[in-house]
Amino acid sequence: MRKIALSILFMAIAAVTVSAADKVITLPKHDLSKVKTTVAQTYNRRQSTREFAGQDLNKQDLSNLLWAANGYNRPETMKRTAPSAMNRQEVTVYAVIKEGIYEYNPKDESLILKAEGDYRNLVAGRQDFVKSAPVSILLSADVSKLGDAKNIHAQYMASVDVGIVTENICLYCAAANLAVVPRASMDTNALKKLLNLDDNQLLIMNTPVGYFVSSKAK
Amino acid sequence: MRKIALSILFMAIAAVTVSAADKVITLPKHDLSKVKTTVAQTYNRRQSTREFAGQDLNKQDLSNLLWAANGYNRPETMKRTAPSAMNRQEVTVYAVIKEGIYEYNPKDESLILKAEGDYRNLVAGRQDFVKSAPVSILLSADVSKLGDAKNIHAQYMASVDVGIVTENICLYCAAANLAVVPRASMDTNALKKLLNLDDNQLLIMNTPVGYFVSSKAK
Repeated sequence: MRKIALSILFMAIAAVTVSAADKVITLPKHDLSKVKTTVAQTYNRRQSTREFAGQDLNKQDLSNLLWAANGYNRPETMKRTAPSAMNRQEVTVYAVIKEGIYEYNPKDESLILKAEGDYRNLVAGRQDFVKSAPVSILLSADVSKLGDAKNIHAQYMASVDVGIVTENICLYCAAANLAVVPRASMDTNALKKLLNLDDNQLLIMNTPVGYFVSSKAK
Repeated sequence: MRKIALSILFMAIAAVTVSAADKVITLPKHDLSKVKTTVAQTYNRRQSTREFAGQDLNKQDLSNLLWAANGYNRPETMKRTAPSAMNRQEVTVYAVIKEGIYEYNPKDESLILKAEGDYRNLVAGRQDFVKSAPVSILLSADVSKLGDAKNIHAQYMASVDVGIVTENICLYCAAANLAVVPRASMDTNALKKLLNLDDNQLLIMNTPVGYFVSSKAK
């Protein structure tokens, strides 16, 4: 009897653990066909916004955003929306949402859990408004993919490539009527530890994204 | 008589010098209204191309390109299409054309001559295809505008901001059916000397741009 009770207890704990944060989140395939903003409007609207509506991004919007950031736009050759130095594709995209930190897998447009729990406070640092963004995109760059990770020029190139992905995000947000701000400050050490990033990895930019509070929507 | 002849000679030389390269090129105001590419197509078409049709960009296309790169999209507050760290706007955009190297002045959308002569070979380095591009956009970043120019984090941020402008260029080219490739290699020392850039200035990226050779046009 006691054994059965214990088994039920363990199963219940397991169920709670699994339901707390999915190990893998399958996103709908990106589909930007509903974005009707023109290119002129997109560049005109590019701006930084530090206020977000509370609700989560729906999965389609999240998928579109991550694909625009650094997805495969030529899947047959595994080439991406973002150019990278020598096509080394050293930038990894993470989505920091309240359930955890997920790595974007461009192969099947899924999210893979890297750290369970709400770590948006680590992205926020001392800027509280960041915690109100439903998702913060975090970008790491593996400098060793560009050669000697200690080489300053390789570090510059990795930083350039992080900037390139950042602007893919900012312009997509301008087009899709999403609020966004590119930022550098965050608790870098804590986030690197959580994500198992070593000294070869730069973690220098994040971009909180959300819907506009309704009064600010375009 | 000899004095008059000499005066005429000097005037003739002066006239030739002035006509060789305009000190200021006034560009038509940017107007992207004819770019009908959708946002979905823009991200899908983002790619690097290393072959260019020979002809010069027309001035409207050049103006649009430079505005998209880092122009004022909110002129009343002097804010730009490209975000920058702490809005320090430390990235300067140059157009390297056969007449010379010109600095883009976003205030009145003009080009200001910085070095007369065809220096596209210095941008090309050992990659000959670059010389066939009618224009190479050159980006410098004044790290001292972000604080201590010797600080590695300030250098990373300047590099990120260069990447951001680079992607503004690449996505605009994808939208406007222009061939482009972002590159790092060039004769940096010679170009820095020509442009009077000191040690506080990073010169790490260039982007040759041209029309597609007709067989490759979209």
